[in-house]
Amino acid sequence: MLGLMQEQPLLISGLIDFAARHHHDGQIVSRRVEGDIHRTTYAAAARRAKQVARALDRLELQFSDRVATLAWNGYRHFELYFGIAGSGRVMHTINPRLAPDQIAWIANHAEDQVLCFDMTFLPIVKAVWPQCKTVRQWIALCDADKLPADSGIRNLRSYEEWIGSESGDYTWPTFDERSAAALCYTSGTTGNPKGALYSHRSTILHAYGAALPDGIGMSASDAILPVVPMFHVNAWGIPYSAAMTGAKLVFPGAALDGASVYELMEKERVTLSAGVPTVWLALLNHMREKNLKLSTMKRTVIGGSACPPAMIKAFRDDHGVTVLHAWGMTEMSPLGTVCHLKNKQLELPADQQLAVMTKQGRAVFGVEMRIVDPAGKELPWDGQTSGDLHVKGPWIIASYFKGEGGDPLVDGWFPTGDVATIDPDGFLQITDRTKDVIKSGGEWISSIDVENIAMAHPAVAMAACIGVPHPKWDERPLLVVIRKPNAQVTRDELLAFYAGKVAKWQVPDDVVFVDAIPLGATGKVQKIKLREQFKSHVMASPT
Amino acid sequence: MLGLMQEQPLLISGLIDFAARHHHDGQIVSRRVEGDIHRTTYAAAARRAKQVARALDRLELQFSDRVATLAWNGYRHFELYFGIAGSGRVMHTINPRLAPDQIAWIANHAEDQVLCFDMTFLPIVKAVWPQCKTVRQWIALCDADKLPADSGIRNLRSYEEWIGSESGDYTWPTFDERSAAALCYTSGTTGNPKGALYSHRSTILHAYGAALPDGIGMSASDAILPVVPMFHVNAWGIPYSAAMTGAKLVFPGAALDGASVYELMEKERVTLSAGVPTVWLALLNHMREKNLKLSTMKRTVIGGSACPPAMIKAFRDDHGVTVLHAWGMTEMSPLGTVCHLKNKQLELPADQQLAVMTKQGRAVFGVEMRIVDPAGKELPWDGQTSGDLHVKGPWIIASYFKGEGGDPLVDGWFPTGDVATIDPDGFLQITDRTKDVIKSGGEWISSIDVENIAMAHPAVAMAACIGVPHPKWDERPLLVVIRKPNAQVTRDELLAFYAGKVAKWQVPDDVVFVDAIPLGATGKVQKIKLREQFKSHVMASPT
Repeated sequence: MLGLMQEQPLLISGLIDFAARHHHDGQIVSRRVEGDIHRTTYAAAARRAKQVARALDRLELQFSDRVATLAWNGYRHFELYFGIAGSGRVMHTINPRLAPDQIAWIANHAEDQVLCFDMTFLPIVKAVWPQCKTVRQWIALCDADKLPADSGIRNLRSYEEWIGSESGDYTWPTFDERSAAALCYTSGTTGNPKGALYSHRSTILHAYGAALPDGIGMSASDAILPVVPMFHVNAWGIPYSAAMTGAKLVFPGAALDGASVYELMEKERVTLSAGVPTVWLALLNHMREKNLKLSTMKRTVIGGSACPPAMIKAFRDDHGVTVLHAWGMTEMSPLGTVCHLKNKQLELPADQQLAVMTKQGRAVFGVEMRIVDPAGKELPWDGQTSGDLHVKGPWIIASYFKGEGGDPLVDGWFPTGDVATIDPDGFLQITDRTKDVIKSGGEWISSIDVENIAMAHPAVAMAACIGVPHPKWDERPLLVVIRKPNAQVTRDELLAFYAGKVAKWQVPDDVVFVDAIPLGATGKVQKIKLREQFKSHVMASPT
Repeated sequence: MLGLMQEQPLLISGLIDFAARHHHDGQIVSRRVEGDIHRTTYAAAARRAKQVARALDRLELQFSDRVATLAWNGYRHFELYFGIAGSGRVMHTINPRLAPDQIAWIANHAEDQVLCFDMTFLPIVKAVWPQCKTVRQWIALCDADKLPADSGIRNLRSYEEWIGSESGDYTWPTFDERSAAALCYTSGTTGNPKGALYSHRSTILHAYGAALPDGIGMSASDAILPVVPMFHVNAWGIPYSAAMTGAKLVFPGAALDGASVYELMEKERVTLSAGVPTVWLALLNHMREKNLKLSTMKRTVIGGSACPPAMIKAFRDDHGVTVLHAWGMTEMSPLGTVCHLKNKQLELPADQQLAVMTKQGRAVFGVEMRIVDPAGKELPWDGQTSGDLHVKGPWIIASYFKGEGGDPLVDGWFPTGDVATIDPDGFLQITDRTKDVIKSGGEWISSIDVENIAMAHPAVAMAACIGVPHPKWDERPLLVVIRKPNAQVTRDELLAFYAGKVAKWQVPDDVVFVDAIPLGATGKVQKIKLREQFKSHVMASPT
């Protein structure tokens, strides 16, 4: 027997309609590529999203046709999120940090019909447009009078001119909630990128999960600055959850340096932010140098890579900001876990709380987790035993777009490629990527543990630990370090810093100081490149 | 084209599995009918819920068969919520405050197969069991040795003996998420009660909505004491949202007097509660008399009836507790709106914030609202114009159980029977029940407005305003008042208290002081009875 409730599909259009009706003057503030600050509201964004829908109708785009974006976080990108998916097309966000050839490959693979880009990315578009066979309309996200006359790009229009002549009077179509809504390709460190094809249902359920108090936690009393990009994994779903809750949105555009982010946080009274550790490093350094404090910020979500405990402590002790360590991935919409203390942990001393907060946190309802050994046997949640992390749930992929890579699931679970422990309270700790684990003498060394210790040293700005081939031990850890400006620390001092913090055999064999560490398109350290670079490194103190 | 996400139905069993796995030692504290305090955990509750499922299997109950409860808020009731629905049966909560004949009528209408009851309700069961034709197993929620030997009830077993012999090793079945999960009858002030049949899908979506920061707001750092009963509208969904988030649960059992509730709040360090105004009146009076303060409570949700502004102020000023005014109904699972300030209202002076907080609040995403005039035309959201309130959404009913009352929807909207205004910020204010509005000389008088003013008078414990037939004006307002113990106030003093607060023609024509005001099974004033009682009342100052 079925229940007797109203059958209403979960659709992305419902989010923007809700925001326009219940938070019509809810603010959307954007630092534009043009450099100025732009202000609009949910009601205006909803109207313009409908203009986008009409403009796509006029181009005769069919249901599920893909429309791509190469854009920063801003109001136009936000409008596209809802206009494209709301009208039944698929919002395909492309990461502009990928190499132009990869971008062209992705656009062709996705069969994008329209591609909208911020002017910052004009050089990329100039380079790739002839290769993008399926794109029949290019849209520059600018006013009509800013459109370059001599770009050479065929079928190029400005966004404002494109939607400007369309009416904002439009009724969103209703369809199966399992329909495709958004497409995002993995960064693809090995092989070609693969697409995660989100549905309306998965997006709405994820938006609920992300907005929960123990998720990212969003409400109409928040002002949220997503540093995490809308061009990758939907800015952790923040655009959707913000519309769901009516939170004020503050978009930083292209200016992600410490000074710009700080200025926007203070001027717009931001309460909540989200981003990868590298961005926060820049912000913390800027504030330290200029002796600045955050006055309205309460929480920041840090994910994408493991957040060093020293960063959590700096935000807490220097700025009264709670770092919410989080973990997820493209294939998970992306949210998996967020680190919030439980009731029973609220009375713990600060250092014990910090120990909890350095973990990636607990699953949001909608995400099931397990850790397994190489034979697929489930491992205990004891906080000690590490294994391959598998996940399952309604906002996790079943397969990749066009079936690339075959069936990724193992007994219905998605193998994340992460190695993790889970403690009895359900707190996940990523100890490594499967491929980054350092195998030394039959034992595993967590590269993240080694890095976190280095990051706690006052002279270290950034650290990456990789395994280097070793004749006897298989691999041994090498620490690659960027020193802070004007800071001094020697190899021996840094290695001595490990004493008592890890077992002796887990201490790196050597340290190399560098000026830069290669980062991938999503801001993660490219260990594959580091391993290549240092594969013949001779350790100064061979074991 | 469909998205490529995992197809996983939203099932209630998923909630208790999640709680057991991620919050295994999460506390469930109950004041038992036996009088003592009982402590258990989510893991133990999940195991016992599975024992319930097995016990139902053994009785050969089929998919969607109804299992009824007549029970207070407690751990056994909680286990039944999940064991019954999780195994594919329908959890039918019956309100023990209904008249025995109504209870029997409901049990027969629902065709309940099993009925579980707290020992408090043994007299009711003794009175009704011969009339309940479909019930083939009666379960007393007690230990085997507490089972009354001479009750005369056929097929009576104790809960502990019933589930005690079953294994907790059980795999929840998987089925269509739209399947019926729970059944709750409206209080039925007119005609026979009608059943709202919730689905698994509606329950999970509602649980997400209720747990949102701008919903009830629940997390693993909370300790929640639901005063609102599990025997009616699922205790506002708190049992589900608590399992979803891992919040500590504190169940008050039958002891809802001020002293008992206060004691439990303090001892169990409760942070969040929920209930109807009458309960909070008792608590506030108790604390005032004994000069007590709440030390851990942060928020309390008040709904079921309009919360007088004086109560919001007392909680805020005397105890630092934020009252979250809320509105919903049986047909809405029940949550519709909760009152949380928006970002732009955070800087308002306290009295202006109070004016906002006295409204019933903003819709949670998942609930659409409109107000219409008698012709069905939509009315503006200006905070002034009042109209019939209609709602729509995935956790709102499409029809009643067995089609009773025909198709209740109007153009796809459910008419709530409430009269309301909605302001430009989306804040709903219920001005009356359609049937309680006082029609005076072609104008409407809000009985709630008149009551709220009376409730702000220091000598008034409770007030109800009804329309009394009038030859010239059609109806005129009469105020029915219970004075606080030992407080004095005269009719004229109370009427003078209205000066400057409402228009002169909205001031009641008369006041009657009474010792009691009739309350219905869900704690609401039975105005239908009051109107009957005072229909021939002669006003002391006829207009």
